[in-house]
Amino acid sequence: MFLVGKNNTKNVLALIAVLASLPALAAVPPKSSAVKDTYTPSAAQILSDSKPWEWRRPDPDDLLVMNLPSGRVVIELDPEYAPLHVANIRTLVREHYFDGLAIVRVQDDFVAQWDDPEADDGGNPRKVRSLGKAKVKLPPEFTRRITGTLPWVRLPDGDVYAPEVGFSQDFPVARDPAQHETWLVHCYGTVGVARDNAPDSGNGSALYVAIGQAPRRLDRNLTVVGRVIEGMDRLSSLRRGRGPLGFYAHPRNRTPILSIRLAADMPPAARPHLQILRTHSPTFQRLLEAARERHDAFYSTPPGKVGICAMSVPVRQLSKS
Amino acid sequence: MFLVGKNNTKNVLALIAVLASLPALAAVPPKSSAVKDTYTPSAAQILSDSKPWEWRRPDPDDLLVMNLPSGRVVIELDPEYAPLHVANIRTLVREHYFDGLAIVRVQDDFVAQWDDPEADDGGNPRKVRSLGKAKVKLPPEFTRRITGTLPWVRLPDGDVYAPEVGFSQDFPVARDPAQHETWLVHCYGTVGVARDNAPDSGNGSALYVAIGQAPRRLDRNLTVVGRVIEGMDRLSSLRRGRGPLGFYAHPRNRTPILSIRLAADMPPAARPHLQILRTHSPTFQRLLEAARERHDAFYSTPPGKVGICAMSVPVRQLSKS
Repeated sequence: MFLVGKNNTKNVLALIAVLASLPALAAVPPKSSAVKDTYTPSAAQILSDSKPWEWRRPDPDDLLVMNLPSGRVVIELDPEYAPLHVANIRTLVREHYFDGLAIVRVQDDFVAQWDDPEADDGGNPRKVRSLGKAKVKLPPEFTRRITGTLPWVRLPDGDVYAPEVGFSQDFPVARDPAQHETWLVHCYGTVGVARDNAPDSGNGSALYVAIGQAPRRLDRNLTVVGRVIEGMDRLSSLRRGRGPLGFYAHPRNRTPILSIRLAADMPPAARPHLQILRTHSPTFQRLLEAARERHDAFYSTPPGKVGICAMSVPVRQLSKS
Repeated sequence: MFLVGKNNTKNVLALIAVLASLPALAAVPPKSSAVKDTYTPSAAQILSDSKPWEWRRPDPDDLLVMNLPSGRVVIELDPEYAPLHVANIRTLVREHYFDGLAIVRVQDDFVAQWDDPEADDGGNPRKVRSLGKAKVKLPPEFTRRITGTLPWVRLPDGDVYAPEVGFSQDFPVARDPAQHETWLVHCYGTVGVARDNAPDSGNGSALYVAIGQAPRRLDRNLTVVGRVIEGMDRLSSLRRGRGPLGFYAHPRNRTPILSIRLAADMPPAARPHLQILRTHSPTFQRLLEAARERHDAFYSTPPGKVGICAMSVPVRQLSKS
């Protein structure tokens, strides 16, 4: 009986947009019969009114498909913000570098991280896997220059950490116009490049994903390469590591990575069939407005604002038929 | 080799303050020999310099001890902000109401929730457990009036959702001085009262905890009663529910609650031995400042700000000797 967040925007997005197929979306009742005039429409209702052009199919060259024993995790890479790191990750993936490595660290309210276990403390340096043709060191891509061609959808609600926030290519970003700089921000599901102390010590062979409160303090200190667009719960629900920084004290607790592939290298039928709502679309703007002004049978006090990490950009599964 | 967030404030808090005992804290090297002059001190260093008076022991009447098969979760209740709900929860606990109930819902990036499974859809209404002497309905305690006696430590860094944010009795809170109102905010680990659509339909027999990005949209729409101060990872790492809203489709996936007790009703030796850093202490203010201006071997660009949900109030385990 007792619920929290019934008809919740994020809930419905997760259910309808991520898990459901298009036919299921079409089964949502039309707005006119389902909602009282004084209510803001639900996210499901807004999404059911979306137009096909408002959704985009990610480039298969930008999609990482990670296979875990529990199932599939899909990550969309953003080569506009981290071109060198994304290129290096593609090289590593094509060498099957990640196959047989493991999730070696899960720190509560912070990150899950995968890496070559032999590269960790207690590993055997002689067994560390070769990076092959991938580069060992890369210049950091913590921020990039703002250019006129870079897409930009401003979120006018403000931010604690940055002068401006919004979306670029449907990823959450921040901007400092005075410095002419922009960067991908760390929200739940953001994927970044782990590194040692030296800013150029990362190369994409070790990656992390944020699994708790948005770790915004990492912004501009680490290279962000993308975000999880399917299977996030397979990472967020992993057993936490009991060693320092959430590393597993015992190798048996690590989660093996069966493989990581680029969608472009998979047979078309086996690729993820996902679409992402364009953040410059009227439908996304309607979702934001409904989240700000939310008023329905459950919510009586609208939040008035939407934080940059409070609204995940909707993803939907296309039926394969 | 590859780390993210090495020497991270939150990391070190989790490790040093929550997991480690006092003797371990004392083993941290002194600041003078460990840090270069240009570096901000680490959280561990700041905490190792704290004074005994800066820590408080929670009132055992305000401590819920939840026993799960995986171990213990401790929740501190805040009767100043939700006196009626906290009183009702104490009544339920003393009737052993929660013993044998279950965590029935875990929705990724949102909440874990416990409840009487028979009260959910598919349950048997005739088997619903009696609330005994506890009240079935309570007036909502979504906000309370600001009074001069209520502790208030303002966080000057701003907030997207509220005119002012800060800490009250070491809980994260927001304020609207124009409305003379204040409320406990939803951060990672915040515990609130689940309810049906009617604002007075909650009573504390069903509770939820936030397990992802701070769900600030719930602020002022639900009654917050406290926060998890130990064992949060036992809730956040639970398998996600696959049914609507993250409810488990199969009862076998629920996590049984072995018991919930008030620390005050436990033998003194069995009670949690935890201390909470007072947010008006110089040490907490030093932690905030170090987080804002963080500069060390790993972090080169200080975030400049700290969000209200980005700095968990430190908790430490007292050795029992």
